[in-house]
Amino acid sequence: MFVRQEIARMSGYTPGEQPGARKIIKLNTNENPYPPSQTIAPAVATAVQAGLQKYPDPHATAFRACAGDVLGFDPEWILCGNGSDDILTICTRAFVGSGETIRFPHPSYLLYKILADIQGACVETVDFNTDWTLPDKFAAPSEGLKLVFLPNPNSPSGTVLSPERIAELARQLDCPLLVDEAYADFAEVNCLSLVREHPNVLVCRTLSKSYGLAGLRFGFLVAQPEVIAELNKVKDSYNCDALSIAAATAAIHDQAWLQDNRRKITAGRDQLANGLRELGFNVPKSSANFVFAIHPTAKAKDLFDALKSQGVLVRYMAYDRWPEGIRVSVGTPEQNELLLDMLRELTA
Amino acid sequence: MFVRQEIARMSGYTPGEQPGARKIIKLNTNENPYPPSQTIAPAVATAVQAGLQKYPDPHATAFRACAGDVLGFDPEWILCGNGSDDILTICTRAFVGSGETIRFPHPSYLLYKILADIQGACVETVDFNTDWTLPDKFAAPSEGLKLVFLPNPNSPSGTVLSPERIAELARQLDCPLLVDEAYADFAEVNCLSLVREHPNVLVCRTLSKSYGLAGLRFGFLVAQPEVIAELNKVKDSYNCDALSIAAATAAIHDQAWLQDNRRKITAGRDQLANGLRELGFNVPKSSANFVFAIHPTAKAKDLFDALKSQGVLVRYMAYDRWPEGIRVSVGTPEQNELLLDMLRELTA
Repeated sequence: MFVRQEIARMSGYTPGEQPGARKIIKLNTNENPYPPSQTIAPAVATAVQAGLQKYPDPHATAFRACAGDVLGFDPEWILCGNGSDDILTICTRAFVGSGETIRFPHPSYLLYKILADIQGACVETVDFNTDWTLPDKFAAPSEGLKLVFLPNPNSPSGTVLSPERIAELARQLDCPLLVDEAYADFAEVNCLSLVREHPNVLVCRTLSKSYGLAGLRFGFLVAQPEVIAELNKVKDSYNCDALSIAAATAAIHDQAWLQDNRRKITAGRDQLANGLRELGFNVPKSSANFVFAIHPTAKAKDLFDALKSQGVLVRYMAYDRWPEGIRVSVGTPEQNELLLDMLRELTA
Repeated sequence: MFVRQEIARMSGYTPGEQPGARKIIKLNTNENPYPPSQTIAPAVATAVQAGLQKYPDPHATAFRACAGDVLGFDPEWILCGNGSDDILTICTRAFVGSGETIRFPHPSYLLYKILADIQGACVETVDFNTDWTLPDKFAAPSEGLKLVFLPNPNSPSGTVLSPERIAELARQLDCPLLVDEAYADFAEVNCLSLVREHPNVLVCRTLSKSYGLAGLRFGFLVAQPEVIAELNKVKDSYNCDALSIAAATAAIHDQAWLQDNRRKITAGRDQLANGLRELGFNVPKSSANFVFAIHPTAKAKDLFDALKSQGVLVRYMAYDRWPEGIRVSVGTPEQNELLLDMLRELTA
């Protein structure tokens, strides 16, 4: 139907299941199990009352000022997006022409390849080492290489590379290195400070996970102002709406909520990881709000199906050249316990 | 800064001014002067209370069901976007490869060229006739032509082509003809019925203008299901957030509000058009929520500047090969009257 060959032959990104039924326990898409800050409801109500008939602020100035205060950057270092997927799309379109190359590690976020396919770009993947570190060739020069995605913490592993290692990679690369920090609020380290010293380091964040706002679609990029200025040409003029700007600003202002939530999630992560290890799973040390669990004998697909039949959704992850496993988002303590009980039965 | 040549040399789309000051009378970006349906505030509050921690429905099912009922289409004929600009972007990326061609009339919506530039596509413009009809060559075959944009009603003119004329153009074109109906709710005619008979007719709508929801970013496309299926591969998975889906669904459900608003806006349009003509302006018959006014002697830029200095923003429009003019959005009766009073002074 009229579409480009690149589009016709691709199948599109398949998001994790979003069941309609409320009784399902959803541990498959790394959402936060807790509702967001209570400051959001009044902020949204105020924005509605102010009237929605005018266009929103095209630059989300209020959010950028507040996020800048929290993170220690001037607002012109920040670009807002309709979710961090919007940021990844903007960067792909800005940096990579048809036939040029995007590099990212394997296994990692499945969307990177989709974005490359839509853009008509070539893909170079570099396998993680078995301990989830990255080999030096991840920073090797390559003809036509225009953008490197590096999720940190990574999905599905939850593992993190040190900022020192990432600085080393950035120095060797002569194209943008987009560090996708969707899960960084749950980690001990992040790469924000690298942005000041490295014009090619871009750090992407989302409010979907650590602020409990997946339904809102709000992400942002931190990069040097010259980079942000170019990316502004590519984004939709009004890519963030008035309600999401109001809600996101309230959310990032409430750092006490973030710290409290972070404590709960990291405690739940320990509960899950330790419980899974006791059941014989191999679980890499996670710095995210999920864990990746590989069982030596039980088949991951069977575990996924059995859990689903009992009303618990996790993500079944099967990657080329990699043992398959299940990725489990951290739930409430009760949800985590229920899952462990089910898996105890299933792996007995 | 690392960006593609196409991006570096372009300047990006400049949205109409969004002044911070509240006292400004804003008739420059075709917003609705009235607040949206009162059903929206409770719908948004309910969505906030339901919790924003889960991802939104990737297909905005509730909106598509409701819009389908209102417009007489099954939901699979509808694709939702983060504003109709998102729909235009999705179509550009899906249909047009680097070096291929997009056609649109001149003068019309300035974003079309920006979208082509970002995509690395070529642009073919076809001038409107002086009476704002389109010459036959708008449908002429052309090597590499992959997408045609046709705003109807058009901006800046506000003029409309008949569905019969557009059907004729569609039959001659062998690529998608995207009829951009951002302003169609203010017109007597539209092209929705063409979508059933012509697989290459796509109709784009927005809630920004006629539903008073520019701040919300919500638009949609009506096209044959095979087309929608391909476009779904290109859109961001969760391009519409939970709050905008809830608000948009409430808005399109309230057709009584739409009809009432439409009456007010079309009455204001008559007030403006007649008043401007009495002052000597040439004003094409508008089927939108704005009028385009060309004065035989007074310079449009001078009028724009003088109005702005008195706190009234209109849009100054200067296009190649076309007399310059001011585009004035329909305001409240009081705003329209105030503007006419000012212009009476300025053109005396």
